[in-house]
Amino acid sequence: MRTVYVNGNFLPEEEATVSVFDRGFLFADAIYEVTSVLDGKLIDFSGHMTRLHRSLDALGMAMPMKDADLLAIHRELVSRNALSEGLVYLQISRGAEDRDFAFPGPDVPPTVVLFTQEKQIIESALVKRGQKVITTDDLRWRRCDIKTVQLLWASIVKNEAKAKGADDAWMVRDGYVTEGSSNNAYIVTTDGTIVTRDISNDILAGITRTAVLKCAAEIGVTVEERAFTVAEAKAAREAFSTSATGFVTPVIAIDGEPVGDGKPGPVAARLREIYIEMSRAAAI
Amino acid sequence: MRTVYVNGNFLPEEEATVSVFDRGFLFADAIYEVTSVLDGKLIDFSGHMTRLHRSLDALGMAMPMKDADLLAIHRELVSRNALSEGLVYLQISRGAEDRDFAFPGPDVPPTVVLFTQEKQIIESALVKRGQKVITTDDLRWRRCDIKTVQLLWASIVKNEAKAKGADDAWMVRDGYVTEGSSNNAYIVTTDGTIVTRDISNDILAGITRTAVLKCAAEIGVTVEERAFTVAEAKAAREAFSTSATGFVTPVIAIDGEPVGDGKPGPVAARLREIYIEMSRAAAI
Repeated sequence: MRTVYVNGNFLPEEEATVSVFDRGFLFADAIYEVTSVLDGKLIDFSGHMTRLHRSLDALGMAMPMKDADLLAIHRELVSRNALSEGLVYLQISRGAEDRDFAFPGPDVPPTVVLFTQEKQIIESALVKRGQKVITTDDLRWRRCDIKTVQLLWASIVKNEAKAKGADDAWMVRDGYVTEGSSNNAYIVTTDGTIVTRDISNDILAGITRTAVLKCAAEIGVTVEERAFTVAEAKAAREAFSTSATGFVTPVIAIDGEPVGDGKPGPVAARLREIYIEMSRAAAI
Repeated sequence: MRTVYVNGNFLPEEEATVSVFDRGFLFADAIYEVTSVLDGKLIDFSGHMTRLHRSLDALGMAMPMKDADLLAIHRELVSRNALSEGLVYLQISRGAEDRDFAFPGPDVPPTVVLFTQEKQIIESALVKRGQKVITTDDLRWRRCDIKTVQLLWASIVKNEAKAKGADDAWMVRDGYVTEGSSNNAYIVTTDGTIVTRDISNDILAGITRTAVLKCAAEIGVTVEERAFTVAEAKAAREAFSTSATGFVTPVIAIDGEPVGDGKPGPVAARLREIYIEMSRAAAI
């Protein structure tokens, strides 16, 4: 049985609960981070902390404790759950108070929850065979740059994809791909350029995105940060996604049409290799 | 101390909790209803049940129990909490399972939570003085017709309004008012016509909205269901909002500019009167 952290306590998962008055439950007034774990070590923890601060700032929420304290809890959970490979999930909500659209006063403490999940990150079956994605409307709110738990649309499109025999959905706003259900989206054009949407309120600034774009620069691949259309994606040489726990994952089909030769592509494979190497070296 | 209902149990509010793995907490994968209570009786319960079914259907969630059983829980809570005037809040989430964007299987039971809140509905200070509203962008997701707990933007704009010395915010999409933070928005034009936005994915189909439009028809006031601009609203003779627990509440200022003579208007007052009379007569 997993041990879960809730507001200062390490609890058996069955006892890990929050109040029904928690604003995370009633208003989706909460933000989160997912940090992956390789060999029992955290990948890019400081990147996730930087984004956590940004999300909290954007919502006018205070940081509930120091980064170092959050790091200690991450490590304690990895240790208690003997987690070698997988992730640590962290969620902070604005706390529990009688239901009111108006925010509670500063005396109401935030709710802090962390738990682990095992996941095969390195030996991923999905990476080997490549993802099939569908495209669908992006109906999410317009502050996708803040990592909130308002994930219902992302969850709906993920299920829509599964129902159609695909693995994920790329969301489309005004004809341009925004991102996947929980990952950033990329194509490699016929001239070998990597194209991925530029940072704005329309997408999440992925921690893995930043790292992978650095990897691309290191191997001398040109990157264009701009929106691309579904038609461009379908005509691409290859496609892939990045996320904290998916690292770099190839996309082999879009709406049932093969991308390139319909097999995982070499640019994604190379970036994945370098990213794993780099992450392992810097893991804490 | 209040008694709260959680998954079959009536609990002291301090013990009313849900799992940290509840999809309402992790994904905002939950819907809700708010039914008001007058003289210890429920107002338009069947209307709320009809919309509850619609929300569940839209998200592919099953009804966790019969309407009659939910009615019994509503009544039990009103009784146990000796609630004379206020509301019963009902939330249903897709249940608790290890975190995954993909929906859990049908064996995972939904989470059902109900609690009461006291509120002075009839003798409302806000109704007497009238609300001041600000206008702000509507950045919510595009399925506002489903009554989900993705309420973060509504909560943010409510706070923005309070910070500006106002009571609420009217949200605006493409130049047209959609609705208030948790209410439908109306204006009365200089020729005495009531204008309120037509039903679409952009607004919630208010149960009180339906009832109040019937009241308007009864007193022979013309109603136009169409989008209106902020400029139209500012030039209106009067303005008001409707919601389950606010009934009909006048709006006396928009963005600091008085609406009409800057006092609660007669159309809102008359509609409120008729609505209260009608609701009391039909309460169960």
